This record gives sequence, C-alpha cells and structure tokens, in this order.
Amino acid sequence: MSEKRLKEFEPVFYPKSIAVIGASADERNFGHKWVRALISAGFDGSIYPVSYGGGTIAGLEISPALTSVPGEVDYVIASVSRQSVLGLLDDCIAKKVKAIQFFTAGFSEIGTHQGRELEERMVTKARQGGIRIIGPNCIGIYCPEHRIPLGPSPLGKVGISGSVGFVSQSGGIAAKLVEVGIARGINYSKGVSFGNGIDLDASDFLQYLTADAKTTVIGAYLEGTRDGRRLFDIVKGMTKVKPLVIWKGGRTEVGAQAAMSHTGSLASSAAVWSAMLKQVGAIEAHSLEELSDGLLMFQHLGDWRGSNIAIVGGLADGGGGISVSASDICTETGLNVPPLSSQTREELTKLLGEVGGIFRNPIDVSQAQSRDPLALSRAMRLIVEDPIVELVLVQEDVDVLLSYSSLKEVERINEFFIEFRGGQSKPLVIVLPPGSSEPERLSLERKLSKASIAVFPTMERAAKAIVAVNSWFGFKKGAESSGQPLQ
Amino acid sequence: MSEKRLKEFEPVFYPKSIAVIGASADERNFGHKWVRALISAGFDGSIYPVSYGGGTIAGLEISPALTSVPGEVDYVIASVSRQSVLGLLDDCIAKKVKAIQFFTAGFSEIGTHQGRELEERMVTKARQGGIRIIGPNCIGIYCPEHRIPLGPSPLGKVGISGSVGFVSQSGGIAAKLVEVGIARGINYSKGVSFGNGIDLDASDFLQYLTADAKTTVIGAYLEGTRDGRRLFDIVKGMTKVKPLVIWKGGRTEVGAQAAMSHTGSLASSAAVWSAMLKQVGAIEAHSLEELSDGLLMFQHLGDWRGSNIAIVGGLADGGGGISVSASDICTETGLNVPPLSSQTREELTKLLGEVGGIFRNPIDVSQAQSRDPLALSRAMRLIVEDPIVELVLVQEDVDVLLSYSSLKEVERINEFFIEFRGGQSKPLVIVLPPGSSEPERLSLERKLSKASIAVFPTMERAAKAIVAVNSWFGFKKGAESSGQPLQ
Repeated sequence: MSEKRLKEFEPVFYPKSIAVIGASADERNFGHKWVRALISAGFDGSIYPVSYGGGTIAGLEISPALTSVPGEVDYVIASVSRQSVLGLLDDCIAKKVKAIQFFTAGFSEIGTHQGRELEERMVTKARQGGIRIIGPNCIGIYCPEHRIPLGPSPLGKVGISGSVGFVSQSGGIAAKLVEVGIARGINYSKGVSFGNGIDLDASDFLQYLTADAKTTVIGAYLEGTRDGRRLFDIVKGMTKVKPLVIWKGGRTEVGAQAAMSHTGSLASSAAVWSAMLKQVGAIEAHSLEELSDGLLMFQHLGDWRGSNIAIVGGLADGGGGISVSASDICTETGLNVPPLSSQTREELTKLLGEVGGIFRNPIDVSQAQSRDPLALSRAMRLIVEDPIVELVLVQEDVDVLLSYSSLKEVERINEFFIEFRGGQSKPLVIVLPPGSSEPERLSLERKLSKASIAVFPTMERAAKAIVAVNSWFGFKKGAESSGQPLQ
Repeated sequence: MSEKRLKEFEPVFYPKSIAVIGASADERNFGHKWVRALISAGFDGSIYPVSYGGGTIAGLEISPALTSVPGEVDYVIASVSRQSVLGLLDDCIAKKVKAIQFFTAGFSEIGTHQGRELEERMVTKARQGGIRIIGPNCIGIYCPEHRIPLGPSPLGKVGISGSVGFVSQSGGIAAKLVEVGIARGINYSKGVSFGNGIDLDASDFLQYLTADAKTTVIGAYLEGTRDGRRLFDIVKGMTKVKPLVIWKGGRTEVGAQAAMSHTGSLASSAAVWSAMLKQVGAIEAHSLEELSDGLLMFQHLGDWRGSNIAIVGGLADGGGGISVSASDICTETGLNVPPLSSQTREELTKLLGEVGGIFRNPIDVSQAQSRDPLALSRAMRLIVEDPIVELVLVQEDVDVLLSYSSLKEVERINEFFIEFRGGQSKPLVIVLPPGSSEPERLSLERKLSKASIAVFPTMERAAKAIVAVNSWFGFKKGAESSGQPLQ
C-alpha cells in the first residue's frame, strides 16, 4: 500500500476530532448515545454533537449544523435519516471532513431501486469532494489505542490495545468480537464494521491492516463483495505477510438469502470461497468461535510453529479419561502427540509412581498433588525439556480441582503456570472447560491470558486453533520457498 | 431386565447403609474424605467409617474392622491397599454386604500379570459369596435422589435429582459430567464411574438404567469392553426404549494407548464402533461437550420431534450477522429453516418495519426494542403460531444486549421467554454465547434452564443437539414400523 493511501486511513482510525450528526439532547437518540460512548471511552480528541434542536450533551454544546461546528472536523459519524445523507455530504465537503461513517440504513440492503441509486449518488459525491465513506448500514470504527469504542453503546467499552485487527460486514458480529476480546484477552489494534461498503470496503480495510505496523494478525467476517477478483488478489498478497482468519457468512442458501437483506450482498458459492481461501493460505473459520479462537492463538503464539504437542491432564486426581479423550481429539484434529523419550518417561515414572501411570504422552500428573508440592513443577520441566515437545497443552478442570483443593492451592498451580510460561520458550496452552465454578475459572483465565497463555474452553477448539497457526506457517514457508516475492 | 436382576441394583443406588473402609481420623486420607462427602451431601442412611486406628470422623465412631460395624451394611466403599482387597471381600461376605466399590487402583490397568490375576480372584470370590463389585479403579455411584455424591470430595456436591442417567469408565469424566450438570441444569437420576468393570460393567449398568423407571435418557463414556458382542446386543435393545448418547474414548492410536494404561481397556477400532452405534440407533458423541449437550437437549425436549426450526436473532440491535451465520450453521448441521408463511411475514413486517428487515426465517427482531415494549412478544407469538415452525431457536448475546439496555430490561426479556415457553407447546432453545458479562449471563442461564428452556453456549452445539434428538426419534420410528418388538 502506498504512503499516500496509508495516509488516507489516518483520519479514519486516528481522527483528531469527531462530529456526531443527529446527536440531540434526547438521550434515547442514537446520536446522543454515540457522543456519550466517545466520552465514556475517553476519546481524547474533540467531540462535536450536531443537531438542529440545540442544547447540550454532558456539557458539550450541540451545534445546529456541521458547518457551524467551531473547530476542524476529521471524521463524521452520521446518525441521520436517508433523506439527509446527500445534503450532509455537501456539508462535509464544505467543512473539509476526511471521512464519514453512516449508521443510517435502508439502502441497497432493502432491495429497492431507490436504495441502490442513492448509494451511487453518495459515492459519486464523495469521490468528487475527496471524502471517504464507511458504510452505510454500519457501526464503524474501533480503535482502542485512540479510545474509539465500537458503536453507540453509551458504556463506550474499549478493550486493551493490542495487535489483532478485524473487518466485519456485520455490526452485531463486530460488537460480539469486541466483547469476546475483552473477555478472553484478544487485544485489538483496530477493527471496523463497514456494512454495505459502498466506498471503503473489505478489500480496502484488509489492505490497510496488512500495511499497518501495529497489526500482526487479521480477522474478517464477510458476507459478500462487489469485486471478488480484487478481494482475491488482496488476500493473496496479504497472507504472505500476515495471517488472515476469515469467516464467510451466507454459505448456505438460507444464509445467503438473509445476507441479501442484511448487507445487500450477493453471496457467492461456499465451495468457491473455501477453495479460494485455501489456495491463498487464508484460514477459514465457520463460526464466531473459530474466528476468535484463531485470532487468540495467533496473538499468543506469535512466530511459533510446530506440530508436536505434549498433553497434560490430571491436575485434579483422575486425569485418565482426560488424557485418553484429549489424545483422540488432538490427533483427529491433525496434531502430533509423539511419545516422549524413554529418558523423560523413566524420570516421570520415578517422580509420579507407576500405579495408573500414563507417561508416554499424554501425561497424567494425577499423582503429583498427593506426593510433593514440587512434583508438578518438576514434571512440567521434564516434559518441556524433552526435545520432541514443541508446545504443552494442559487441561485444567477448575470445578473438579476445587472439589479436592482450596482456591489458594488452585491459584498456586496457576501462578506456577504463569512463572513456567515466562521461564522458557515453548508455548503453553490451557484448556479451562466451563462448569460449576465459573467466577473462579474466569478469574484464573484472565490471569493466565495476561501472562500470554492462550486459554480455551474446550480441547477441540484449542486443537483446531493450533492447527490453524501451523497451517498458515506451512503455507507461508511454501510460498517463500517457491520464490514468489513477498509483498 | 428381570425383577430379580433389577433388585440386585437396589443396594447399589439406594443402600440403607454405607461402610467406608480405610477411613481414618486423618483428614488427608481419601476414606476420611469420603465419609465427609456422604455427610455433606446429606446421605440419610447409616454411615460407618472403618479403619484399624480407631477414633472418630465428624462425630462418627471409626470401627476397627467391617465385621465389627454395629449395624447391617448394604454397600461398601473401599479405599484400601491392593494387598487388602481379598481379605476385605471375605469380611464383606461374612457381613452379608450386597455390593462393594473399589477406589483402589493398580490392577489390570498397570499391565502386569499380577494385576490381572488379582482381578480374577476378586471376581471368583465375589461371585461365590453373592456380592457385586463396582470397579476397581473407580469413584463409584452418584445418586442425587438418595443423596449419594460422586467420589470422595469432602464438599459432597449433589445436583438436583432428575431423569438423566450416565455410565462412565473414567472417574474424571464422570466428575466433570456432574459439575457440568450442576452448572447447566442437566439433572441426573443416577450415574456410575465403574473403572476396570471386572464384575458389573458398562453392559450391566446400561441394562439397569434402561429398566430404571426414573431414567429417561442415558449417557455413556466408554473406553473398551471385555465383551463387545454383549454390549452390542444390550445397546441394540435399549435404543428402542430410551435414547443413548455414547462417547468412545481411545478412538485413535494415541488415545487407545492411554486407555490401556487408564482402565486396562483394549480399545477397538473407531470405525467399527461408529458403524455399530449407527446401526443400533445410538447417538455418537466425540467430546464431553457433545455428550452433555445431547443429554441436556433430550432432557428438555422430552418427546418432541421435528426438524423445521425458526431462528430468531437481534434481541440487541444488529441481528443481521447473527441471522445469516445462524442460518448457515443450522442448515449445514442438518436442520430445516423453512420460509415462514407469507401471512406471518406480512404481519412481522407490519410489526417490525421494513428497513433492514429479515423476516423470511431467520427473523431479525432488532426493531422490536425501539418500537414498542410488546413488539417482541407479538413477534414471538406470530412466529410460533406459524404451522411450519416446530421449534424456536433464539440467539441472545447478553453482553451486547447489556451495552444498550439495563439489566432490568434484559431480565424482563428473559422472563418473557420463560412465560412464553410455559404458554405453548413448541420448544424454545436459547443460545447464550459467553462474553464479557458472565455473571449476568450465567444467572439468566440458570433461570431459563429451570423453566425447561435448553441453553447452549454456541449455535453449532445447539444445532447438533437438536439433530441428535431428531435422529434418535427417526431411528425409533423406523425400528417400530419395521415390526421389531420393542423391549
């Protein structure tokens, strides 16, 4: 992406000032909520509410029109009627606004000639006036670093600033990605819900995130695109540089019909998409869970690559069934669970005893607790030091553990994992299945996640996400060795 | 199952008295914990701790030997060394004990000749003395109705008594099934962890649960069996009467090796198992999640059968992406999402407005909130009254909802669902995906679940569980119409 084009996105994600059009003093009004959202989030640029009724929002004067706003305006959020969009664009051009996001809906997605025509006129006007459009029918930008919350929720929730970027055609799915990110520690650099994408669309945002130095992995929810060839070329270029996890909505006939009403997208065949994504090395997700799991795993695993994992079960007594079933799930998902070296196995047997012992890999550490406070840490050390092991996957059932140990003891085990993760280079992934001790489990998840340990609710989801990371590195290596130039 | 055989299980699940052998005054001791577990759970029969050291546990006198216990003993829990098991069996026979459960491990699962031989001698002795063995290498019985907790956790957790039975070769997986049951409202009639199953094994317990009037659906985690032919015949008979959801551990080579060390099971080929299960109409699960999802859905759906579902999204604004993706997931999983009648669609359009409207099925109710407090209930009524709809599947993202509505408003929506469920016959299944408002979400899940609404964390898991219920009824209908006698 050229420097000039990169610069175009500066006022989109880092505007110095934002005007919200249609922000009246009535707090039920979406524009009003949007202003409160920006204030709650702590956006540190100027915020200008605009509505002809006048008044104030949280002490901010409401200007009667965009053209009467006292300062410069980089970015406009428009929560106005369809009838007002063209007039507003004229005002934006007069005010030298750089970009405008339309929350307003009722365009091509309602399937009328008028809707499509209005969109065309908006684009023509914007291009002539040198202004970029996000939307319409969308909730726009999310940029934790710059304290821009996603959408008009007056809570203005903003997660920790990180390195994961996303683009979403759907506002609801973008909103859920943000919530899941806050919950699981997926820390976003920036994201966008772009709705009908009549000007800036998926391709543009994907190109930008690929060029953006603060983004290391990209997620996407797409329903369709106006220019499939362009999207294909862009995705092809970007997957050589950064991993892309992409979820396609409207894969089925029923889904595609809903997508038509939702974002006016003509969905293309699921098989064509899947084949295309595979060809260009993108990771395909089939649900919000797979999308967020992939992003979380890429975030925590960074440049790791490998496929030989060690499975550890039995933090609470009785890790046998977990060891058996985790082995099945990991193996069937495509991971290698190679036997540990005979030396490691002998030392584990010495440490943890023979009765009911499962030490080949999977490793059942059931006996550690009752033996010696240091047995678990010694066992983990032995496992991670075995040269064949590239990643350690632990299943920890917090509710079962708490049936036999105090919360303090369980916390100590997790503190050990955090220390252990920091003390060596092989990644640690922990499966913490939900159950009857959710407050304790969620608190442990937060602590582990902050220490760069990827936490998953099920073994299957953890295994799939590890495979995703691997497959991307495999693709990248293939592309590099085939001599194709990297972008 | 004959009356006589059924009677044999009476002292196993409903013992009037339990002796715990190896229950010393030392609270670190597992036998000691087991006695505390029975007390905490509120077991209302007699509890007799036995250990030669004497002393008391929570005021209960510790008898020096089983033979010196003052009252009759129906059931024995043995937490003793391997060396003591044969002597203990002699004592049990002398005391006219009906059944004994061995927590003791270190038999065939450690792969030695001595281990296997000891098991054989135990069985011979037990058969001669007319006593049944559960285990060894297991945590035994769970019976909420009779206040028997699963295993030696001193917390003695016991869920609500219900109609779901389970058998598990693994204690860890049985323990997790109980925790997940407490969390999600899967209410068990009874369950058992039977470990090496040298006497009573999976086949026996499955037969019993099939005959048990209090059990309506059965779950199983199995790693292997000594008599595959017998298990096959039993499963074949039972699936004509009650649904069976069965999860096979040791499907892969790595898993099978772990299973050998875990319960001494020679795992058979995954393909053979899958084919066998399909042939006899059992539902195959591949993880604890699939197993518990299936049990939960059968519990709540009872005798329901159907495959035409209506999908409702958009309780928070922006249900478009949810509608699209839920349609994809449900359709790909094998559910029908048929278009609503044109009359229903017209009425929904009148009620919820046309802009961005998705009313064909899926139905996006985004506009309901902002229109009229009664719009959601009217829309739900219209949907459920459409004759083509057999089940309503709602996605509710609590964290996104709470970004725009107060907790009180969200609770009101859920109270409406509870009332709605009670007021008509078509089942309501709600997907409540985890996110950033877990305390509120979990509290809503508990309330919905108590009102017989099945709650799932992901659309995919809900869809799979509905398909499972359906496929069993399909099988049952086929078996009935083929004229085979039902057991």
